Amino acid sequence: TVPRLAPHATTIFAEVSQLATRHDAINLGQGFPDTDGPGSMIEAAVRALREGHNQYPPGPGVTELRHAIADVERASTGLVRDPDSEVLVTVGATEAIAGAVVGLVDDDDEVVVIEPYYDSYAATIAMAGAVRNSARLVLSDGRFRLDVGSLRAAFSPRTRAIIVNTPHNPTGAVLPREDLEEIAALCREFDAIAISDEVYEHLTFDGIEHISIATLPGMAERTLRISSAGKMLNCTGWKVGWVTGPAELVAGVRTAKQYMSFTGATPLQIAVAHALRHEQEWITSLRSGMQDRRDQLATVLEGVGFDLVVAQGTYFVTADPRPLGVTDAAAWCLELPERIGVAAVPFTPFVDTFADEWSHLVRFAYCKRPEVLDEAGRRLQSLT
Amino acid sequence: TVPRLAPHATTIFAEVSQLATRHDAINLGQGFPDTDGPGSMIEAAVRALREGHNQYPPGPGVTELRHAIADVERASTGLVRDPDSEVLVTVGATEAIAGAVVGLVDDDDEVVVIEPYYDSYAATIAMAGAVRNSARLVLSDGRFRLDVGSLRAAFSPRTRAIIVNTPHNPTGAVLPREDLEEIAALCREFDAIAISDEVYEHLTFDGIEHISIATLPGMAERTLRISSAGKMLNCTGWKVGWVTGPAELVAGVRTAKQYMSFTGATPLQIAVAHALRHEQEWITSLRSGMQDRRDQLATVLEGVGFDLVVAQGTYFVTADPRPLGVTDAAAWCLELPERIGVAAVPFTPFVDTFADEWSHLVRFAYCKRPEVLDEAGRRLQSLT
Ligand SMILES: CSCCC(=O)C(=O)O
Ligand SMILES: CSCCC(=O)C(=O)O
Repeated sequence: TVPRLAPHATTIFAEVSQLATRHDAINLGQGFPDTDGPGSMIEAAVRALREGHNQYPPGPGVTELRHAIADVERASTGLVRDPDSEVLVTVGATEAIAGAVVGLVDDDDEVVVIEPYYDSYAATIAMAGAVRNSARLVLSDGRFRLDVGSLRAAFSPRTRAIIVNTPHNPTGAVLPREDLEEIAALCREFDAIAISDEVYEHLTFDGIEHISIATLPGMAERTLRISSAGKMLNCTGWKVGWVTGPAELVAGVRTAKQYMSFTGATPLQIAVAHALRHEQEWITSLRSGMQDRRDQLATVLEGVGFDLVVAQGTYFVTADPRPLGVTDAAAWCLELPERIGVAAVPFTPFVDTFADEWSHLVRFAYCKRPEVLDEAGRRLQSLT
Repeated sequence: TVPRLAPHATTIFAEVSQLATRHDAINLGQGFPDTDGPGSMIEAAVRALREGHNQYPPGPGVTELRHAIADVERASTGLVRDPDSEVLVTVGATEAIAGAVVGLVDDDDEVVVIEPYYDSYAATIAMAGAVRNSARLVLSDGRFRLDVGSLRAAFSPRTRAIIVNTPHNPTGAVLPREDLEEIAALCREFDAIAISDEVYEHLTFDGIEHISIATLPGMAERTLRISSAGKMLNCTGWKVGWVTGPAELVAGVRTAKQYMSFTGATPLQIAVAHALRHEQEWITSLRSGMQDRRDQLATVLEGVGFDLVVAQGTYFVTADPRPLGVTDAAAWCLELPERIGVAAVPFTPFVDTFADEWSHLVRFAYCKRPEVLDEAGRRLQSLT
């Protein structure tokens, strides 16, 4: 592995899932649901396979999927995007992020990230040979908010982009409009773009609304909005994601992605197009079910003695295990699968500059069937 | 698009396929078959979808596929690879190439390519911030051979890797052992690795044998061997490829690829595993069918007046359109779909240092049904 990527040699998700498999643990580490998406979507994939849609899709993705993405985005955000030049299908949100950073950020440009951040952000910034500057979230009145001072300090005339993520992984926070406005103001001031990872856009709870930074004044023309069927339609293993934005920025992502994967899988893109057209109710109902799962796991974790920050969205809840006597959360997470048959991920891979403020925390995923969370609860009881 | 990737903003394949679609042309440009892979493979994918294999696969790929790849490779090359650490499933060969270059080649390292070369090689070298040095093929006794002088001149103490491609795209050449030995000797002398793109390994004709450079003395420990189900099993739109090699090199590819796509599509990986186990006869029979297609298209093209170099393997034949009065092959290719309803690709995107020697050539794909090649023949007749 080359020096620029050496610090990113393993991802915590692969590592923890491997441990979970080895010890037959309930995997509340890597975020993926344990029930599948709508049956009509699976059957649409079956038809596509049998009807001969098994060769390369067009480079930007199958046409019907790009049209469906544009229509769904218009309905949810009001943004109007041209399916031909302003929508690009990617191999999951991961490729959209990599393509955006590698395609648009030059060597020695600066990219702002907000700690804690999803691990691939740092790795793709390293791939681009760019410089990472961290802002941070802080806990304020029981919820995570943007620390505006750190955000201002992270921007400079060399800032090319900020990676925004709301609903936020790993904390489960949903950034309020005021925080997004601070980011937008700095993007406009420094002529920076926003690479906005919104893969959990459909999973917010308690009536909290997801706001895309692309909808703020002056931002549609400088935002790449990234989402994914994996999280929207319970098909994380299909790897169908997308990015929308102004044609010039989308073209930059396409340039990089066409040499990363060329394209994703044709029959699965066709099936996702079908589901975006016909399964909006299914997508909506996922939200209330997920809120119940969140509450179920929160009750368990609080019962065991963790301190929690209520998740406003996503698959994930932030837990502080110090009340249980845990002094090294990262080491504790790596032991947990063998010890009690449950897997979780530490915050350590998601932080850097502000590591001291976050390294005691762990993330549990609640995107699992009620009976699985029940069993996880029983296993977690052995910690008390 | 950033400056380092600006020269690679479009790929000729996406461009020509888009033209072909627009003008309802027979697409002999981008290389993909027009019949699907074995029915049992499609049905294995259907079962995987319906039986709930729709969430993330393990980072390195589904276990049964890695085992099948190792077994098939052992049978065909004698190489013994550990399925856990020496086999990595990728999103097509494209991702394997990108991961190898971005994960293992440092800024300012040098990478040797052999002109003409598949276009993604140059783009990924640019992504890595590395330097591209070209060797070249030359026409000798009616076949393409490595020009050893240019190869020696392209190596230096800064050479980290050479990208080898046999059976060769775009020329259809199959490199003989002597040529591979020259490459291997320089890899050993300069302690360079070979990134060996062998996606057409199963498609050689006239009894010519494919030789993997990984099987040459001292090369197993310095070669990444790349192949793909797309070309082996007529499922280019599934995007299931792989790379095998020593654990340390495979780990470097994994580091990069896990932030490019994270993984590929679970149900399709499962289906390819099934086909590698049960459809070896299908794979073998593809070869003789493809040789017939090659001969069919060659007869047509010669009848029209092209000068041809006989393809020894792959999907592609090299055609010289100068006898038809063509003076600008690149412009001619871009007009062809509208003019006569047939698409082909020029050699220009595959060359650079030695552009003068190659830019008059075009590539036609013959991986199509006989009746489609017949119809292409009728349309091509209008050129005479
Ligand atoms: C791409 S693997 C990780 C899945 C995920 O989004 C998470 O667990 O945070
Ligand atoms: C990855 S798209 C191009 C397909 C191909 O290998 C070719 O046409 O050369």
